[in-house]
Amino acid sequence: MKYKLLSRLDLPRDLKTLSLKQEEELCREIREKIIETVSKNGGHLSSNLGAVELTVAIHKVFDSPKDKIVFDVGHQSYAHKLLTGRYRSFSTLRKKGGIAGFTRPLESEHDACISGHSSNSISIALGMAQAMKLSGDDHSAIAVIGDGALTGGLAFEGLNNAGRSGANIIVILNYNEMSISKNIGGVAAYLSELRTQYSYKKLKTGAKKFLGSIPVVGGGISRFISASKDGLKEKLIHSTIFEDFGFEFIGPVDGHNLVKLEAALKSAKEMGGPVLIQVNTVKGKGYKPAEEMPGEYHGVTEFKIETGEKPKVEPTFSDEFGAELARLAQSDDRIVAITAAMKYGTGLNHFNGSLKSRLFDVGIAEEHAVSFAAGLAAMGKLPVFSVYSSFLQRSYDEIIHDLSIGGLHAVFGVCNSGIVGGDGETHQGVFDIPFLTTIPNVTIYSPASFAEMRLCLKKALYEDSGAVFIRMSKSGDCADELEPTVEYSLTERGSDTLLVSYGRAAIEANSAAEALGCDMLRLTRIFPLQSEAVEIIKKYRRVFVFEETSREGSVGEKIRAEFPSADCTAIDGFIPTMSVCEAFDLYGLSKDRIIEKVGGAK
Amino acid sequence: MKYKLLSRLDLPRDLKTLSLKQEEELCREIREKIIETVSKNGGHLSSNLGAVELTVAIHKVFDSPKDKIVFDVGHQSYAHKLLTGRYRSFSTLRKKGGIAGFTRPLESEHDACISGHSSNSISIALGMAQAMKLSGDDHSAIAVIGDGALTGGLAFEGLNNAGRSGANIIVILNYNEMSISKNIGGVAAYLSELRTQYSYKKLKTGAKKFLGSIPVVGGGISRFISASKDGLKEKLIHSTIFEDFGFEFIGPVDGHNLVKLEAALKSAKEMGGPVLIQVNTVKGKGYKPAEEMPGEYHGVTEFKIETGEKPKVEPTFSDEFGAELARLAQSDDRIVAITAAMKYGTGLNHFNGSLKSRLFDVGIAEEHAVSFAAGLAAMGKLPVFSVYSSFLQRSYDEIIHDLSIGGLHAVFGVCNSGIVGGDGETHQGVFDIPFLTTIPNVTIYSPASFAEMRLCLKKALYEDSGAVFIRMSKSGDCADELEPTVEYSLTERGSDTLLVSYGRAAIEANSAAEALGCDMLRLTRIFPLQSEAVEIIKKYRRVFVFEETSREGSVGEKIRAEFPSADCTAIDGFIPTMSVCEAFDLYGLSKDRIIEKVGGAK
Repeated sequence: MKYKLLSRLDLPRDLKTLSLKQEEELCREIREKIIETVSKNGGHLSSNLGAVELTVAIHKVFDSPKDKIVFDVGHQSYAHKLLTGRYRSFSTLRKKGGIAGFTRPLESEHDACISGHSSNSISIALGMAQAMKLSGDDHSAIAVIGDGALTGGLAFEGLNNAGRSGANIIVILNYNEMSISKNIGGVAAYLSELRTQYSYKKLKTGAKKFLGSIPVVGGGISRFISASKDGLKEKLIHSTIFEDFGFEFIGPVDGHNLVKLEAALKSAKEMGGPVLIQVNTVKGKGYKPAEEMPGEYHGVTEFKIETGEKPKVEPTFSDEFGAELARLAQSDDRIVAITAAMKYGTGLNHFNGSLKSRLFDVGIAEEHAVSFAAGLAAMGKLPVFSVYSSFLQRSYDEIIHDLSIGGLHAVFGVCNSGIVGGDGETHQGVFDIPFLTTIPNVTIYSPASFAEMRLCLKKALYEDSGAVFIRMSKSGDCADELEPTVEYSLTERGSDTLLVSYGRAAIEANSAAEALGCDMLRLTRIFPLQSEAVEIIKKYRRVFVFEETSREGSVGEKIRAEFPSADCTAIDGFIPTMSVCEAFDLYGLSKDRIIEKVGGAK
Repeated sequence: MKYKLLSRLDLPRDLKTLSLKQEEELCREIREKIIETVSKNGGHLSSNLGAVELTVAIHKVFDSPKDKIVFDVGHQSYAHKLLTGRYRSFSTLRKKGGIAGFTRPLESEHDACISGHSSNSISIALGMAQAMKLSGDDHSAIAVIGDGALTGGLAFEGLNNAGRSGANIIVILNYNEMSISKNIGGVAAYLSELRTQYSYKKLKTGAKKFLGSIPVVGGGISRFISASKDGLKEKLIHSTIFEDFGFEFIGPVDGHNLVKLEAALKSAKEMGGPVLIQVNTVKGKGYKPAEEMPGEYHGVTEFKIETGEKPKVEPTFSDEFGAELARLAQSDDRIVAITAAMKYGTGLNHFNGSLKSRLFDVGIAEEHAVSFAAGLAAMGKLPVFSVYSSFLQRSYDEIIHDLSIGGLHAVFGVCNSGIVGGDGETHQGVFDIPFLTTIPNVTIYSPASFAEMRLCLKKALYEDSGAVFIRMSKSGDCADELEPTVEYSLTERGSDTLLVSYGRAAIEANSAAEALGCDMLRLTRIFPLQSEAVEIIKKYRRVFVFEETSREGSVGEKIRAEFPSADCTAIDGFIPTMSVCEAFDLYGLSKDRIIEKVGGAK
């Protein structure tokens, strides 16, 4: 039997009784199960493989769900899921109705909170720890956070509030020198130094003892020490940033050594109060292709286990966007590209060679990215921030305050807009139209094809002003036969019924319109609404709008203000995990569903 | 003549030629002018008085606008304004068409960017510095940031990116141990320690020299030193957090000593690259009442210069909100209050005595506040975050991700919603309805009176679910004669014309409706739209909606989707500085303007 322990044990309870050898075997089984499942269903691989021993050690030492485990991002929670009753259903990972790719309280009482976005774990865990402190409960809240997530300002706000809180919060810094791409910035460099100081604790203790032995009169260092009134002696010994923030610091601990991990966690538990443990792990641990290229195996679709071989992927909108931007940047040195730790996911890896100095990877710091862009724009540069739609939500205030009030010009590549599939609720790009359209002087494009995206990019850079957004779906080019436009295109078939759509959904609507013999209005610039497009809409008896966006604040709602009887198909509530096709069908955006609806209406 | 230097000099140019004595006299004049103006017009006092010498020194050493000075928040930029051509117009401070209370590029080429919100200065300055670096321009970008603003995660993201950037960015940490109330958290405590180490630099140099003299063989500390391969000798000497981030560190410098300030700034300029200068200042410096109670004189209306006496203010919505919440908290220990460094401004100062342990001041960290609230809510607490509308914009993603997807229950006191007057564009609370209504399962109230606010608060805490927002205008109770309701109230006068409004604007609309003989529908719960209210609206021939909010995403737009011919009066674009009354008039929300509009329409 392949998964002898996983299939027989009652976890996490039985974990407490296992021998070290059994625990190691359990880790092996967990890794195998993760690799097997992800190779079929896709998902996060490297981050999950790196956190196996750590997760086993946490569940061994702590008592979930009384102790609360908060996984930052949640892309390292698969071992946790296998250890908390989800072994049998694990093959449904990232499938409709199945196990989610991130933690989800509805799925298990062991999932302390929703995860998916970065850098919030310390804040959430602190809320839980303070709640327990107020209620006289001495359990712990444990935040598990990678060094990548630590580059987000929210994590810093959490550290700043947690360090001197006196609450039972334990922050486990899962250090692997990676977020999704290689980490950059002051903190990353700092942590990289810490990583090498494996004997830090011992060193510090020894040095303290030595300094303590110096008489407080006389010359040399003792003169400086005696000059201090408040523990300068302590401070002369370098302390970690985390100690400066008020945490007790433990580590670095070898993150693949169960004995050391459990010892460190036990110490932290016994200490009480805010403790930070640095755990050094290897991303992709135990699967050679992922260990060698952790970035390549961070988020994957399917792959062959034996070789790590992945199916050849079609070029994506993001990739083509980055390529086109790089091409334009070759002949325009005002163009500067910005990514928030997602150079590959947002296509900006094309800024290489001579363009490298004009690519800024700012870490997982979407707020900074926009304020930084404002500074560049104020100096006459053309900043382009390429970012996932769901993560752009973090920049709402900065788009208003730093860009729009002053009328500065910046362009945004909004990747993974619309429905995203397996990643579920937290990653759906369905709020960008609603929130961006609340901001004065914003322009939004939603191209349907690569060719159209290129036209939009040029227009955004060289003709538009203010903050300009180019929405791109998480897919390849499926509309290369369409005549590209930056405005709108109308297909007339002499019908009194008009279908209106944009972006990827417009392809489905287009096919449906053809089948139904309806007229079709495809928008490329979707905001502000084009008055010519509105005039066209007003000529029809019946108008149906189809769009991959949350309803409140959608384009359809804006059309309804002009043409009240327009029927709008959009998304209500949060979209759980399912494939893009399934979601298109469920939300009435697929060709068949559109035909059903329009054909069935009078 | 009172302002001999200010009135005669051609500033900032002539500053370069002044003697120390003249500079000191200039500082005195600037202080006098600030006190005189703010005592009449209101504005920020303590922060501006604390930064006078610092600003003079910056303009003496640097060459604005070629060197870029970015003031964080901008509530310390009055001296800068007086030094850059705005002495003559300074009496129009915070008046319609006058000098803005924060920096504003439209006003002067010396105002490098829009300011008003906190913690963005390092990011913006870094954008400018990187732009200059790319263009081969060796001028500097200078961020002036208080220790209060440093508790915001965005500032950390800026530091993290700036420290190892190699760009000419100088961060001046204006350290005064205050944001608006006393600073709290790990960084504040850390900085407080730094402040006392006035001989830090000297000490460090001495200690380094001493350690260098220890032979690398033998016992004691030298053993530890020789164990290091990469500069551990350096690291053993405590370095500041800023050095850990890659900055050169200068300071602390006495922020009221021009000689020392100019020397430090010159060093930084000569060094090039990222430098952080810590400057210790006294908030309110030179005006005794403000020095003694800097929090009380942070933002003021008018006051008597001789005594510091301020006109007795009417109780505000925020204050009454805090008082009522504290009253409820006395008998419900699940209630926990959260403020982002604005205990007084948001009424949470009422959490004192036995309630103190249930008030969390998280610093200027609105993102953390919401994620922290999510952690509390997950543990069964009733978190209430009281925050200014314009600053809540920072929490958009966390409200979606940490609260709403998981359906957690939290209540928000949204202070200063609607039009705010003198603070201008950056502080207007006109986006909350547009952005909050894009989030599934959100409830919003906009009470018109204190009594109504109290009802809403109870309903929000004990009957509603999800994220619930109570919008409150920056004013006193002007509607205490109204029958309070948490839903809506209809005043019928047999008219076929209906006026719809809510909150403070409803008072004006109400008076107009009375004068016009129109029917009046006043909403308290404004989102989701109440179906009964919609049914009422549909009965009328003509419907006019009046609201203090940005148009796109407004309640009126949502009503128009149900009743297309509804005429909506709302706000387009950003509202510049003017009084609330002037804005009501300009945007058509005052009684007279409403009468004009409705009376003039057929």
